[in-house]
This record gives sequence, C-alpha cells and structure tokens, in this order.
Amino acid sequence: MERIKPHILSGFMELLPRQQALMERIIGTVRRVYSLYGFTPLDTPLIESSDVLLAKGGGETEKQIYRFTKGDNDLSLRFDLTVPLARYVAMNYANLSFPFRRYQIGKVYRGERPQRGRFREFYQADIDIIGDGSLDIMNEAEVPSIIYRVFTELGLTRFVIRVNNRKLLTGFYDMLGLSDRAAGIMRTVDKLEKIGPEKVRALLTDELDVPAQAADRILAFMSIKGDNRHVLEALRAFVGKNQVFDRGFEELTAVTGYLTAFGVPEDHFSVDLTIARGLDYYTGTVYETTLPDHPEVGSVCSGGRYDDLAGYYTDRVLPGVGISIGLTRLFFILDDVGLLSSEAPTAPADVLILPLTEDPSAAISFATLLRASGIRAQLYSEDRKFKAKMNYANKLGVPFVAFLGEDEIASGQVSVKDMTTGEQRRCPYGEAVSLLAAFAAGRESWTPIKE
Amino acid sequence: MERIKPHILSGFMELLPRQQALMERIIGTVRRVYSLYGFTPLDTPLIESSDVLLAKGGGETEKQIYRFTKGDNDLSLRFDLTVPLARYVAMNYANLSFPFRRYQIGKVYRGERPQRGRFREFYQADIDIIGDGSLDIMNEAEVPSIIYRVFTELGLTRFVIRVNNRKLLTGFYDMLGLSDRAAGIMRTVDKLEKIGPEKVRALLTDELDVPAQAADRILAFMSIKGDNRHVLEALRAFVGKNQVFDRGFEELTAVTGYLTAFGVPEDHFSVDLTIARGLDYYTGTVYETTLPDHPEVGSVCSGGRYDDLAGYYTDRVLPGVGISIGLTRLFFILDDVGLLSSEAPTAPADVLILPLTEDPSAAISFATLLRASGIRAQLYSEDRKFKAKMNYANKLGVPFVAFLGEDEIASGQVSVKDMTTGEQRRCPYGEAVSLLAAFAAGRESWTPIKE
Repeated sequence: MERIKPHILSGFMELLPRQQALMERIIGTVRRVYSLYGFTPLDTPLIESSDVLLAKGGGETEKQIYRFTKGDNDLSLRFDLTVPLARYVAMNYANLSFPFRRYQIGKVYRGERPQRGRFREFYQADIDIIGDGSLDIMNEAEVPSIIYRVFTELGLTRFVIRVNNRKLLTGFYDMLGLSDRAAGIMRTVDKLEKIGPEKVRALLTDELDVPAQAADRILAFMSIKGDNRHVLEALRAFVGKNQVFDRGFEELTAVTGYLTAFGVPEDHFSVDLTIARGLDYYTGTVYETTLPDHPEVGSVCSGGRYDDLAGYYTDRVLPGVGISIGLTRLFFILDDVGLLSSEAPTAPADVLILPLTEDPSAAISFATLLRASGIRAQLYSEDRKFKAKMNYANKLGVPFVAFLGEDEIASGQVSVKDMTTGEQRRCPYGEAVSLLAAFAAGRESWTPIKE
Repeated sequence: MERIKPHILSGFMELLPRQQALMERIIGTVRRVYSLYGFTPLDTPLIESSDVLLAKGGGETEKQIYRFTKGDNDLSLRFDLTVPLARYVAMNYANLSFPFRRYQIGKVYRGERPQRGRFREFYQADIDIIGDGSLDIMNEAEVPSIIYRVFTELGLTRFVIRVNNRKLLTGFYDMLGLSDRAAGIMRTVDKLEKIGPEKVRALLTDELDVPAQAADRILAFMSIKGDNRHVLEALRAFVGKNQVFDRGFEELTAVTGYLTAFGVPEDHFSVDLTIARGLDYYTGTVYETTLPDHPEVGSVCSGGRYDDLAGYYTDRVLPGVGISIGLTRLFFILDDVGLLSSEAPTAPADVLILPLTEDPSAAISFATLLRASGIRAQLYSEDRKFKAKMNYANKLGVPFVAFLGEDEIASGQVSVKDMTTGEQRRCPYGEAVSLLAAFAAGRESWTPIKE
C-alpha cells in the first residue's frame, strides 16, 4: 500500500495526551466559573454564510478569513465568537431574555502568517452580557470578579486586571481639542509600554500633528499611576470640564467601588489610563489582564463595554460588555514560561486493574464496582509479561494498580499498589473501593497552573 | 446603516439556550462516562491537509467533503473522527502507550443533501481502544458496558445493544462457497429489517446470483433469534466446519460471557446475526444500538472491531475497537420523539439576586458568598419595575430569587423566594447559603432524557 506521511498543518495546535489533559482542565475550569456567574452556554456553527459573517466588512481580518464555496454557498469559518453572537442575538431576539448572559468556548480561524505562538485555529472563551436598550454599570463592575476567579481557580496568583474607561479618554482628548484624532492617539498611546514615552511623543507630534503642549499633557495624563484611590483622586482634578469625561469618571469610580463586594483583592486590580483596546466599538470600561512576571506576553484576557452589538443585523440597540480569553495562546504561553503543572494528575485512570488469571471475570466485576462509585478504572488484559504491564502503568502515570490473582480471588480480596509510595496491601473489595474513592475525591482539587 | 438579514446555513443545528443546556448535559454525561472507563481526551484540528484526510480516497464520502484552498494549501474539514485518530496515532506512535484508549467529542462536516434530521455539521462522540500488534478480546466485551452506562446515565431505559461478529458471517458465507460475494450479501442482508425477507431473497438471487438453496440457508441463519443463550446454542451447530466461523463463535461467546461481570443486564443486550455494519474495515465484533419503541430512527451508537487502523500512514499493525455516537442526530431524534426532558433544570443560575436599594453592595456581597460556595448566582440590577424583574426570573426558570431591600440589609438578612412553591422566607445569609447549596447539590442528578 502506498503510504502518506501523517502530518498536521502549520499553525494548528495538537497535543499529546498529558498536555491535552491539562488543556481540558483549563477549559473545564473556565466553563465552571462562567457558569457560577449565571452565564448560559451557546454553541454556534463554525461555518457561517459569508454575507452574514462579513457584514461589518473589510480590514485586516478579512484577508485572514478561511472563505470558500460549496455548491452555491459562499461560506466562511468564524474568526471570533462576537460576530456569531451578534447574529444569534439579532436572529433570536424574540426568544431571549435580557440582559442575556452567554458564554461560548469554541475554536475560531484566522489564516495569519505562521509565527511562534500564533495560531490559525485557536480556542476563544468568551462571556458577554447583552442589554436590551440599556445595561446597568454593575455588569461592568462584575467582569473583573469573573476574570479574578477564572485565573485564581486555574492556579495563577500573579496577575493584574487593568481597567480603564474609554469615555475618560474620549473626554480628555475632547478637552484638548483633539477629538478628530482620538482613535489614532489611542492607538499610539497603546504602545507606551512597548516603545516608551519619548517615541510615543514623537509619533504624536510628527504623525498625528498633535501640538507639542498637548502631547506633553497627554503624556502627563498617562503617567498618572499608583493605587486606585490615588489615580481616581488625580483624575478628579479634571472633573467638571467635559461631560463625557465626567461620565467616564463616574463609571470608573463605580466599577472600582464595587470591587471589594465582588471579592477582588486590590492588588489584582489596577486602574491604568494607558489601556484603550484598539477596537473602535468599545465605548466604556475596558479590560486587559497581564502577568507582571511576564510582560512580554501581553494581555491574556481582554474586553470591554460596547454600545451597539448587532447594528449590522438589527435596529435594536443592544449594548453589552464582554471579555475573551484566547485559550490556545494562553496554553502556549503558560507552557512556554514554565507555569503548567508538571505534577498534575493527568493519567486517564485512577487505577489500572490487572487480571492475573486466565478468566478475567473477577477483575471485570471489580472494575464495574469501582466505576459505579465514580472511580476511573481501566482494565488491562493484554497478553504481556508482568514487567511490561507495570511499565504501561508507569507510563500512563496511574496512581494505583490493582491485582487480582488466584489468591486474591479465592479470599474475595484485591491487592492494591500505591504507585507513588510503592506500598502494596491486600484487602476486601469494599475497603479498596473506599481507598480509591477517597483518592478520586481529592483528585478534583488540582490546578493546571503551578507558580 | 445597511442591514444584513441574520441567518444560519441549512443543515446546521443551532439551539436556543434551554435546548442548548440539554445538549451540554448530554455531552457532559458522555464525557464523564468515557472518562470513567479510562479513556483520555483528544482534540485534533478540524482542518486537515487534504492529502492526509483523503489518503484512503474515493467513494461517496469524498463528494461530501468541504474542501478548499488557502494560499498554497489544499485543505479539508474532517468528516469523521476516525481518520484523524489514525493520523494522530501513526504520527505520535513513539509517544503513546498501547493499548491507547482515547475519546474525542467534536464536530465533523459532511455536505449532504439537506434533509430533515440530516446535518452538515454534527457532533460525534467516539471512543477507540488501539492495540499495538494485537488487542485482547476483553476490550470488545467492555464496549457494550460503556454504551449501556452512557445511555442509562442519559436517562434512557428502553434501548438494546445489538451485537454480532463479522467472522461468523465471513465464515458462514465461506461455508456456502460465497466468499467472493460476502460484502454484497452483507449489505443486502442489512436491509432485512427495512424490506423484509422476501425482498432480500429476491435481491440475493437476482442481483448477486446467489443460488436459491443458499439464499434459503442465509435467510434461515438470519432468522436465528431469541435470548443470547438460545442463539449461541443454535450457532454451535455450525461449529467445526470453518475456522473463521469457529473463531467468530469463540469471540461472540467470550463477549456475551463477560456481560454480567461488566454489569450489562441481559435485556439490554442482544446477539443479532443480521447486524453487519456496511463498512469493510470491521473484522470482528460489531455493535448497533437501537430504541425498540422507535425502530424508524435506526442505530444511535455503532461501531466495531477492526484490524488495521492506520495502514495508509504507517506499517505498524494497529488493531482496535471503537464506537461512535452521533450526538447532533441523537439530540434531534430525542427531541423529535419527545424524549427530551421538559422539566430539566436548564436555568443558567440557581438563584437570581435582586438588589432593591440604590447601593447594590449588599446584594453583590451576597452573590460573592454564594459563588464561593459553588452556587450559580446571577445579579440583576437593571432599572426596571419589580414586576418586570420577576418576569425575567420566570422566563429564565431560575428556581430561587433572593431580595435585598433596606429591611433585609438593616437586619443582616436576605429574603429568598422558592419560585416553584411560591414560598418566601427571610433568614440570615448563612442559612440562605445552606438552603441554596442543598438545592445546587441536588441539581446535578438530573438526566436530559425522560421516558
């Protein structure tokens, strides 16, 4: 037979079982936390009609889209979960209750140039809260608590949720008479961390024609730093000059003020005036989440408040707030900086059962008993030497091996070996079930990240 | 703004929140059961290189494939999870331990003609056990116990796992001197249930040139029915005439013999000689699962034993056994025949919290407390009339609503209304947490299917 060399496409992540178990744990944790906050799961098709998906049209994204025809249909793979959400909400408006809180975890596709840490197929894990006509500021305050809980439950302790408000920036640039260049200025200021204030100043004056004095005032504004109370105090000096700024100040004060009630420790939250998010559709609170020990990786969870989710599909005004975690990139980063747990219990079973007699019935019955108690049990009945069987157990990393030989069967017992300590004991079935059930109950507490 | 009418493509399933919650429950149950049996999760790309995916080439499937180019790449969307598994195992052979037991739940794509109950994007939920060179029969006996547990935990009680062995059929047709037409005969006999013995006999004699006497013997063989012991007894009469038949008989006897130890009740398992599965690569035990009350829906879980998983990619001999559940079609069928639970607790939250004061801090703190205890809590702070808020709670179907007004806050209490009974009580936070935690603990026991 002619053989094809098996391979996968570049830019596609595929994991070996041990790594995959960690990835599943990450996805499961995100799903569980999103559920705790009252979000309902959605699942939209990966393929959308191109006219629907590209309603917004144009730009850099369009070139990256996987677009093709099948029969008469012009099809595209989704490149994010936001456009499908907008389409879904517009399409099912009458059947939804608002605020509509949904989470979606799924793969999206972008044909980017292959590059280390850039993926063409990757998971996004999104939440959005969509209002019908209006949406209370409390929802914007709630989002940092969800981010906090997600990363904490993943096992991360060193991360900072950075928050800003676009109205503050819009109002501030309006005060300076720079409203016409606000979008360009925000994009430039966004580079502060990467290229420093000198270069940002040069870009502002040279490329955007910002007067020197205004550029200085922008940089002075962006240098307002410190704890949240201090930053808000400094911002108060600008209040009363511009309505949009004042509204942004109010919102930021509210968001910050509810933090304690939402259980977010102050040291995990930072008002950061340099954050703007590139996208134009954000209109209020914006979020980025960074790892202070790894500034090079940028934001691992971003989002914000927008006023018009689905204007391309409906005349309903649907404001919302949402965040997205790029799970595939997050996994790559965590692995890269050594934060993925190397001791995580990623074995596919809690116990490997070895029948040591011709007839495996006793071993099978024991496996059935364990599974009925929620213990993950694997039977191994291949015709191999004993040493090969133990090698197999070691390679899988199963924490326990159970033997059923003639002696055990005759006495109605089973021998259980703890693979970590090497300790082995023979005991009645019931006792073995208790032992393994106690282990299995504890197994659920592990986190995929170990700092 | 010009508006695009939001729509999805025909043949793609997308669900409203309540239905989606049921679908998530089904997927979650399948995942949990597969894990209990020691299968490790895999996740392969949805897009494969066309030369890899179509290595096997040809046939009806190829026309249905979503195939397209991006840059220089000839790409195809996967049409099942078996070919990607073969590619994965061949590619990662050195890093895997055998038997390699994996499950995968994911979407696959087939551009079939649109038809009621046929989908172009649908979930498959597969398990496979892959041996290196050989694989013990015990694995084939284990599979029915997994099918049994999956459907039982989904809440289905009326289903039958029908089992046969291809070696029995191959040997039997060899005895009749019909080896050259065995594949065609199996495909014809497969139609017995649909078109009846008369028409099958006509097809055998007219289209496949089977002698009349042989056709009668085939139909007599296929009419062997009854309980498993009876069928095996009848088959014993053929033993000793053909080695392949004898091997099949041994295997079927072993598979049937281990059923009790595997915890499969006899009435959910039936040796059925008419089952063959169309595909040529099955070589031993084959499985179909049907609903006796709904014969029109056909098999909802099928699979079998094969000798050569990955011959297109590697010279390693990799025999295996696996099953696949088409979850999208299963969901459609269950909905269609009215088996999906209408009382399932599909609300996105266990409790909706209504702050009734200007400052929502107390309500937020209470929400934080609940979430810390694993209770799914949603805050509702939109500026709406009280009646509109309760309407919202009713529409979501949340089982409890918690109120925090001035009186409650002043006394450090919360009012909790049971939406099912209408009963309302005011109690301290701790008591409310206990009440809701007790409910949340019980919530996990529901099944998506109610017969």
